[in-house]
Amino acid sequence: VSSGFARVDAARVRALREQLDRELGAALVVKDDGVTLEAYGRDESGLGPFLADLVVFPSDTAQVQAVIRACQRHAVPVVPVGARTGKSGGSLPVCGGVALALEKMNRILQVDPDDLVAVVQPGVVLGALVAEVESKGLFYPPDPNSWETCTLGGNVAENAGGPRALKYGVTRDYVLALEWVLPSGEVVRAGHRTAKGVAGYDLVGLFVGSEGTLGVATEITLRLLPKPRAVRVALVSFRTVADATGAVGRVLSGGFLPRALELLDDVVLRAVAGKGVSFHPESRAVLLIELDGTRDDAVLEDLLEVAARCEEAGALDTQVAQDEAQREALWRVRRLVSPGLRALCGGKLSEDVVVPRSRISEAVERFKAIGARHGLVIATYGHAGDGNLHTNVLFSGPEDNPRVQLALDEIMGVTLLLGGTITGEHGVGLAKKKYLPGELGPSRLALERAIRVTLDPEFRLNPGKLFEQS
Amino acid sequence: VSSGFARVDAARVRALREQLDRELGAALVVKDDGVTLEAYGRDESGLGPFLADLVVFPSDTAQVQAVIRACQRHAVPVVPVGARTGKSGGSLPVCGGVALALEKMNRILQVDPDDLVAVVQPGVVLGALVAEVESKGLFYPPDPNSWETCTLGGNVAENAGGPRALKYGVTRDYVLALEWVLPSGEVVRAGHRTAKGVAGYDLVGLFVGSEGTLGVATEITLRLLPKPRAVRVALVSFRTVADATGAVGRVLSGGFLPRALELLDDVVLRAVAGKGVSFHPESRAVLLIELDGTRDDAVLEDLLEVAARCEEAGALDTQVAQDEAQREALWRVRRLVSPGLRALCGGKLSEDVVVPRSRISEAVERFKAIGARHGLVIATYGHAGDGNLHTNVLFSGPEDNPRVQLALDEIMGVTLLLGGTITGEHGVGLAKKKYLPGELGPSRLALERAIRVTLDPEFRLNPGKLFEQS
Repeated sequence: VSSGFARVDAARVRALREQLDRELGAALVVKDDGVTLEAYGRDESGLGPFLADLVVFPSDTAQVQAVIRACQRHAVPVVPVGARTGKSGGSLPVCGGVALALEKMNRILQVDPDDLVAVVQPGVVLGALVAEVESKGLFYPPDPNSWETCTLGGNVAENAGGPRALKYGVTRDYVLALEWVLPSGEVVRAGHRTAKGVAGYDLVGLFVGSEGTLGVATEITLRLLPKPRAVRVALVSFRTVADATGAVGRVLSGGFLPRALELLDDVVLRAVAGKGVSFHPESRAVLLIELDGTRDDAVLEDLLEVAARCEEAGALDTQVAQDEAQREALWRVRRLVSPGLRALCGGKLSEDVVVPRSRISEAVERFKAIGARHGLVIATYGHAGDGNLHTNVLFSGPEDNPRVQLALDEIMGVTLLLGGTITGEHGVGLAKKKYLPGELGPSRLALERAIRVTLDPEFRLNPGKLFEQS
Repeated sequence: VSSGFARVDAARVRALREQLDRELGAALVVKDDGVTLEAYGRDESGLGPFLADLVVFPSDTAQVQAVIRACQRHAVPVVPVGARTGKSGGSLPVCGGVALALEKMNRILQVDPDDLVAVVQPGVVLGALVAEVESKGLFYPPDPNSWETCTLGGNVAENAGGPRALKYGVTRDYVLALEWVLPSGEVVRAGHRTAKGVAGYDLVGLFVGSEGTLGVATEITLRLLPKPRAVRVALVSFRTVADATGAVGRVLSGGFLPRALELLDDVVLRAVAGKGVSFHPESRAVLLIELDGTRDDAVLEDLLEVAARCEEAGALDTQVAQDEAQREALWRVRRLVSPGLRALCGGKLSEDVVVPRSRISEAVERFKAIGARHGLVIATYGHAGDGNLHTNVLFSGPEDNPRVQLALDEIMGVTLLLGGTITGEHGVGLAKKKYLPGELGPSRLALERAIRVTLDPEFRLNPGKLFEQS
């Protein structure tokens, strides 16, 4: 595969492997068969494959440390890998070398209802943690779409978000402490088991979202919340996206902070039409609005006031789920969006730009116009509460790629012009690397590079990602 | 004043001043009279005075930049200063040089109800921002005790907290973006106007709580929330701190997340006795529990269930505020704690350690025992929801200082043994510098030092704070 990235020299990899065999022997699982290399060469970004030379499966912190030290010694790149559900190519081993797969470190070490804390290894699947904490009446809010398969190490590396971010924040807001192997191979512990703590710099914050470039998390301490006892959802239809975002403003200014405020535009509605939920015939946008709290009657009363506020803002109609089955049916619409859009055209490229809340409607219009100029259909859905838009460029096949790339460049440009950011939850990785300098500007890019150099002078960890060494 | 810190050479200060006069002339206010130097040599830590050579009052980012560049050029220390309400001595110019007072940069640049964003200069007083946002139906949750006088630049530098942290988080959770002058004098902008954004490293998180060592914030973009429409508070009495913390567990496990959960122990109750609120005669601990939400009736119903849960956990009685005047009266008790404790003995040293929630009662007992061994009375109050304890060592006069210091050393030791942290909201500054290595350990301290060196090789910003250069 020609990728534009310099691959590591084979002799170095051989020397590395000999050292690993000597030091760790059979205790460390190492694979280099074609099937494994191919599997670890891809993620959900659609980029790749980029083949590692070796995929290693450490089972504890000491093994992670030994692998990273050996990679430093033999000048071999090393890329931490979770469940490969990433959307930006962040875990792809573009320069070859070692893919460091954390999936064997998959133990939930502790769920403590008194301290409202969970301690997990990086390979724990988010869905497994959710099941465990909810069985104890607790709540871990971050809910990326891939929650059933993604792992917490990946969530931390990418600072995963999800629909609940408006009210509950993102992964970063729940990481209390980390044990982490630095690019030097040293183990550092940062953060606290307590929710508060201001001693020293916020190294946890620096690590979360660093996309596998500043080290490898080997133990993650998470903040939990009491589980809300009541949840209610409604689907509200509008004539336009502008009406829908106007309604969002009226809801928020009424003192309501929904746990989800999902927007679907007209193309998305076409994609999910006839799949179990019917929309008002004039609907060209809908909001899925979910509230939670302690008392079902109070949450329902709130939801009815929210619906009334939406109607004042021009809503066509409101469907309030009356029970858990109806709630599930409304959320099913949201989950059908991605496959539905793919079925509309054949292929799609899903972005995750963010614009200030007041610019959502303008952004959706401008993205559509960009698509029209390039003969492409653009669909937008996403988190209307925080402006995080999953703008999808639909296409028929690989022959559309040049037009798709041009449209994407323009979408990123408009996003930055509107005061937004190129990625709200997927990360930069490989997919958005070329747009990063435009967002950060030279001073900030230089500062980030200086910090990375301080921790990893040779860019041994995840080279080729985020930005180059110089 | 002999302080153990090396003071900057007078000739360098003269050369610096000449450059500032040449470059900025009368546009920059510079003072070096005795009254000003004395005033800027102290904060609420009780340490000092430490006299700067000059106090400068920049009025814009360019002046901040010019001062910092000139200080670098002439090798003169420079220490950013807010409202001097800090409790850890973080803004004291211990090596002399320049105190960079941000109080003239005190404009609220924007409060945007649509984007739920405020943009402020660092010298804006928190109380002024709160008044402005609340007048628009919005809410800025962080509420350090000094909110009427402290400034947002200081809040950002120290990552200020407050009683509402359990439900709403601390300053760091509300800083979306910063314009900040690096120790090099370069201006960098980091973060986004949007709530979400994962492009690049979290430099905002790194800066918040860096205690004036990594630069000077010159513009701060803050996340706002809709203002909760209903708030209710209750005061619940208990026989012991253990009963009170047991009740906290029952409240949280019931699915409630109070906006405040303040604990007062028996010594604190003595200090506020007869000041307008009467407690059950057997009270040796009380909780002040405040809930908020959208509907007063629902919040009240929740509060009554919370009270019932407290009674199941052994509460003696509950006083629910029936109106705003009664709410004010109950909170007045909390505000009288600090002067009340001072009146008990004469002097007090107030700490802000944090322990895991499950260890609060044990911590309070062990702190009392430490006091008893040293013939000192120890009083504890604080945020029972997040384990952030304001443990106060009471004393009569300066002659008690050696005993107080011994007790303090032991309190910090016990805090770390219990899995806690030496500071939850006051910062390390000068007051806790000697305890920092014990908390961080050598790997983390080395990493933090390396980051500081990367940004400020000569430790020109706020030297003598947090940790030394080598």
